[in-house]
Parts: sequence; C-alpha cells; structure tokens
Amino acid sequence: MPSISQKGQRMPASPIRKLVPFAEAAKKRGTKVLHLNIGQPDIPTPHVALDAIRHMDLKVVEYSHSAGNESYRKGLAAYYGKHDITITHEDVLITTGGSEALLFGMMACFDPGDEIIIPEPFYANYNSFAMSAGITVVPVRSGIDTGFALPPIGEFKKLITPKTKGILICNPGNPTGYLYSRAELETLRDIVKEHDLYLFSDEVYREFCYDGAKHESAMTLAGIEDNVVMVDSVSKRYSMCGARIGAFITRNRELMATALRFAQARLSPPTFGQIASEAALNTPDSYFTEVIGEYVQRRNVLVDGLNTIPGVICPRPKGAFYCVAELPIDDADIFCQWLLEKFEHKGHTVMMAPAAGFYAQPEPGRRQVRLAYVLEQDKLRLAVECLQEALRVYPGATVSVAAAQAAS
Amino acid sequence: MPSISQKGQRMPASPIRKLVPFAEAAKKRGTKVLHLNIGQPDIPTPHVALDAIRHMDLKVVEYSHSAGNESYRKGLAAYYGKHDITITHEDVLITTGGSEALLFGMMACFDPGDEIIIPEPFYANYNSFAMSAGITVVPVRSGIDTGFALPPIGEFKKLITPKTKGILICNPGNPTGYLYSRAELETLRDIVKEHDLYLFSDEVYREFCYDGAKHESAMTLAGIEDNVVMVDSVSKRYSMCGARIGAFITRNRELMATALRFAQARLSPPTFGQIASEAALNTPDSYFTEVIGEYVQRRNVLVDGLNTIPGVICPRPKGAFYCVAELPIDDADIFCQWLLEKFEHKGHTVMMAPAAGFYAQPEPGRRQVRLAYVLEQDKLRLAVECLQEALRVYPGATVSVAAAQAAS
Repeated sequence: MPSISQKGQRMPASPIRKLVPFAEAAKKRGTKVLHLNIGQPDIPTPHVALDAIRHMDLKVVEYSHSAGNESYRKGLAAYYGKHDITITHEDVLITTGGSEALLFGMMACFDPGDEIIIPEPFYANYNSFAMSAGITVVPVRSGIDTGFALPPIGEFKKLITPKTKGILICNPGNPTGYLYSRAELETLRDIVKEHDLYLFSDEVYREFCYDGAKHESAMTLAGIEDNVVMVDSVSKRYSMCGARIGAFITRNRELMATALRFAQARLSPPTFGQIASEAALNTPDSYFTEVIGEYVQRRNVLVDGLNTIPGVICPRPKGAFYCVAELPIDDADIFCQWLLEKFEHKGHTVMMAPAAGFYAQPEPGRRQVRLAYVLEQDKLRLAVECLQEALRVYPGATVSVAAAQAAS
Repeated sequence: MPSISQKGQRMPASPIRKLVPFAEAAKKRGTKVLHLNIGQPDIPTPHVALDAIRHMDLKVVEYSHSAGNESYRKGLAAYYGKHDITITHEDVLITTGGSEALLFGMMACFDPGDEIIIPEPFYANYNSFAMSAGITVVPVRSGIDTGFALPPIGEFKKLITPKTKGILICNPGNPTGYLYSRAELETLRDIVKEHDLYLFSDEVYREFCYDGAKHESAMTLAGIEDNVVMVDSVSKRYSMCGARIGAFITRNRELMATALRFAQARLSPPTFGQIASEAALNTPDSYFTEVIGEYVQRRNVLVDGLNTIPGVICPRPKGAFYCVAELPIDDADIFCQWLLEKFEHKGHTVMMAPAAGFYAQPEPGRRQVRLAYVLEQDKLRLAVECLQEALRVYPGATVSVAAAQAAS
C-alpha cells in the first residue's frame, strides 16, 4: 500500500467535527445532543435568498466566471461601501466559502517555510490551511485573563524573523468573540508597514458586534492598501453556511491576478450559492437588528450561566457568536468525548469543541472549550444545566463542583 | 509591497480561460463568439435536478457533513454499482467539483518534490493542482499520430524514479477524447502494482463513450484496490458544471480518513449542489441516450469538418466531448488571440483553448488547440467555416490554405 503524504499525516482533525461519530452514537442511543461545537446558526436564512433559488429560471447550471458573477461582485462592492470599505468589484474574487479565500491567499502570498503570526487561540482551520500551504504558524498568545485582548505590540515584534511574511487576525474573533479596537488595528498596521508583511483579516462576523461596539475593518487602514487581504463569507451573515460562498478581497492588483489563477484552476465558485448570495444583499436591516438582539440574549444566557458554575471562567465576548471557557478539568478532549459517550441529563448532553485545536500547539488550550451560542435560549439554559451537572459528576474534575456548591 | 509567493508566480493561467478578456472585447465590438474553448455544455440540466432545488423546503441552509450528505453518498454508491464499480458510501467523499477531489488527493498522497506521471496532453488544471501541492508532473507523451493512444509500458518504466509516487489518467480523456481499453488499464495496473504507486483515475466523462465502446473504470482493476483514487463530478454528466459537486473515491481507508481531514478544514461541500446532484441520480436513461446521440453527431460535424481543412489533423475521439487538432500555424496562443482580436466571418469568430497548457512543457502543444463540441451542430458547422476562412487569411499560416484549395 502506498504511503500517505507527510502533510496528510500531520493534517489535524477538526476539533469542531472530530467528535461527530460520538455524537452520532449518542443520538442512536436516544440522547439529544445540544450542538455548541459548531458555528451552525439555527437562525432562518433570509427569505429573499431562498426565494431567489426557488424562482430561478436556469435551464443549464453553467460555470460562472472564475472570479464569480460580475453582478454579484458589484453588489458586494456596494455592500462594503455601506460598511465604510471603499472598493470596486475588481477587488473582489468570489470563493467557495471563506475557507477557499484563506487557501488562495496563503498559496498566493506564502511559500513553504514562510511564517505567519496569528494571535491565539485562533480559528482551528487556520492550522489546516497553513499545513496545506506548507507554512508555519507562529502564535502570539492572548490570554483568557485579559479577555483575549490583542497582545502588546512588543510581543509581535519579538516573533518577527526574516521568514515572517504575514499576520492573520479574525475580527470579531472566532473562537474568542474578541472585537479589535481601532487602536489595536493601528498598532497592527504599524508592524505590517514597518516589516512589509501581508495582513490577512478574516471579517466574516462583521455584523455580529454587541453592546454598541462598532466593527473596524482592516481595509480601512491607511498606508497598507497593498498589504491587506480581507476574507469574507455569507455563511454567518445570512445563516447560509451551506451555500459555500465567500470572498477574497484585496486592492493589491498583482496579488488579485495571482489569486485568480488559483481560482481558474478550480473553474468557478458554486452557481446556486452565488444566486442566493446576490439576492441576500437585499436582506432588510430589520433582519440583522433581530438577529443581533437574539445573539446578545443568547450570549448573556450562556456566558452568565457558565460563570455561575464553580471553577468555570468565560470572558464576555463583544462579537461573533462564540466564547472560550476554561473548565475545572484536566483535558477538554477527554471531557468532551465523555459528555457524548457517558453522560446525559434530562435526556440531553452537550457537544463542544475542545480548544486545544484552536492553538498552534495544544497545551495552552487543554482545559478550554469553544462554545457557539447558536441555539435558542431555552436550549442554552439546558446546556448550562447539563454542563453544571456533568462537572459535578465527572470523574476527572479538578475542582469538586459538588463540594463548591455545598460550601456556597 | 510584499512579494507574491514563488508558487503563485509560477501558477499557470488557465489556457481554457486566459483569453476571456479578448472574448469579452470581441463581444463588445459586436462579434459573436463561438465558445469551443470550454467544456460548458449547452445541454439542459435534467428537470429532476432543477425541480429539487426549486421545491426544497430548507429554512436554514446548513453545512452538510464534511464528507457530504449520507443519503447522497449512498445514492452515488448505488449509481456506481450500475457501472460495475462495487463500493459503499464509506468509499465516497463528496467534494466541491472534481477539482477539489484532485487537490485533496494530491495533498493527501504526495509531498513536495514527489513525481506523478501523466500521459500528455492532459487536462490543463492538473498542472495547477500539482503546483498547489508542490509536486512534479512527469509527462509521458501520447502522440496525435496514434490518436493519443496510451504510450507503450516501456515508456512509463523509463520515467519511474525513487520519487515517483503516482500515475494520473483521465478516461475518457480531456483534452483528447481518448478512451482507454481494458488491456491498457491492465498494463497500467501492472506498473502500479510493481512499484506500489497511486493510480488516480479521473472518470468524469464516464457516460460519454461513442461508437459502441464501453467505459472501463480503474476501480475494477483487481489487486490494486488500495492504490486507486477515482475522481468524479456531476458537472458534465448532468450538464450542471455550476453545481460544483464532485467526489473523491477510494477503498483505501487510511487515505479516505486523511482526505476527510482536508475536507473538514473546508467544512462541507455546497448544500444546494448536493440537493440537485442527489435528485439527478433519478435522471432517466433516455436523457443519456439523447445526449450521447447528440454528442456523436456533434463530434462528427466538428472532426470531419476540421479534417477537410488543408493542413489540419484531428483524430476522431471515442469519448468525452473534446478533440485536439493540429493546425497549420506556428503558435496556437497567438492564433487563438488573433481570432478574437482581429478576425470575424459572418459576424462570428471562434474561441479555442491553445493546447500548450495541456502539456507539462508547452512546446509539443504549440501548434495544437483543444476544441469542445458543446454547441449545436449548426454552430459547429459555422465554427468550422470560420476556422477554414481564418486559416485562409491568417498571416501566420504555415500552409497556404488558399493555395491548397486552389490546387485541389
């Protein structure tokens, strides 16, 4: 039997999806699984998007342009204009999800052995795309104690080597929900400019900012126009993860021409998804007002609930719909699997993503989990109750929740 | 400005799509372009597939399983069963087009510097995926004089080095339309077995076999079950290129588990496309009978027509819907661009794919073009007429078509 590639052997399993077989087994046993592991919202996709698909009059489902349909690209440029991001459709390449935008960007900008600095914890699949492109992720730690704020500029500077070619941020952040301030972005801008690095900014959660906070895009940073790559997606914005439509955005013409050659190789982004995504640009503002109101309440239910459990620490995020919690356990991988294999409470259990995979090396995330607050509030309350009960009875708990509760 | 990656700089522009800006300019001038450059059929997508999309009752367009919807994978396994390919749904991973299946396969099987032998001319984007994975394409030449038959086994053996890790074929072939015989496949099987190589078999044109010929799948070769990767797609079969649904198929469990980790990183294949593709499994046989009848007539119109033009050589393919023709010119890149920029006949011109990009190195394809017979017969007749006229007036013709015609 021929051997698997080195790259293939080292390719990490997704921490978000690797426990799926255990969840499937739990469901077969009759246990209901509360899915907090994956950013798959239960929010309805806007009617305008679904109606466009239902009423399309295509006779032949053709390839589109490799860069995506021009009408959609123009529509997107107008959408960005409303968010203070001034670009034209020529700065937009439509991709198969934000995932493909990340892959094209890494392939077009970095060579094997190049280094990219990423504040950690970070979206787990950044590790996977970096592995695919053969590049090295150099993490800069943001800690749960500071609510996962961007580390001081000095920490970045310490990590810069001749091999450093880029910085990647996710804003608002997955998994932490952290929202970067203007001052933090300007700090990054200065490093990027000084060392002539690429700045990749994953802004797929743009709309999901809470408590009156405003999202600031890396595309608005002056003086590094040719350095910035913005990654975007309709998945979360319109709750249509399955459409697999994203965008690779840059004002750097040479880079765009290069990314287009990668795009030509895979022919085109999905036609149906582009139809739905273009129509989704007409989603009324009221949709977002409602959705954001709902997420704020969900966040409060989940984060407040988690922080009432003895030994659990969970900063309150200002954006996206995730939080990272530290649990009174030794190993979240084992705990999350145990939840699915051995535990139930009122017929339910909870599926979470162990956070180790959201770090460049697993250790700092060993006791942490990522939770997505993408379920109704009642289900989130039940999830908190399940977790509290689970930590009370879990043989590997490092803090006795039962004892703590008895004491309080 | 930060530099583009080496990989990005070397990434070839698609020979199928790189002339698109010239075609767009021709259209703006009012010239109608006959698109023979791209395998985008004008055949209607089956009603069952489009109806499934129009009548879907999704409220939320969710991610699917990373390997694709289980019901679709089971349906596909049954479809393969009808084609003498015995597999289960666990051998099937749904991908975003055949393109993604090729990329996952190359990433999972080969490391940078590994060599893969491909009979040339080959599908141009194999070069691109190999470039993405950092692997070296080693071509084995099939010639227009033998109708692009598989070269003798001795030619393969000469090319095998310690770095050789695989062989990739396309059957029926794009761009040549060549259909491999059972004996040829068994020859390949012997080499694969002797050297323990991977055999990638791109079989996306399975249904398109003509003149009573039968398609033989690499999945039916005994003794190399763990070596074979089959690449498939719904794009051509159901004329739904824009759905972006393909499949990565192997009985090698370790390889499938590895490919699944790459698949998890990009989350899932497109949901809408999977719905259409699963429904398309119910396409009636009569659809294929009609479509194949039509392609045979188109092939005859195009290939017979081309061969009447002095100085043009075009073998008659037994499968797919492409042919490669050698033209009495010096450089097909220049000629194809000239056709779009300077030529028109009865208000039309022809767009073709210069064949140089379908070779590992451009030289052997310099005087060749790939033509896709995906247009109605009348349009193909007009395309032949255009080409004949173009070669008569083209300043760079190496054979004087006018003189040849006058003499005959």
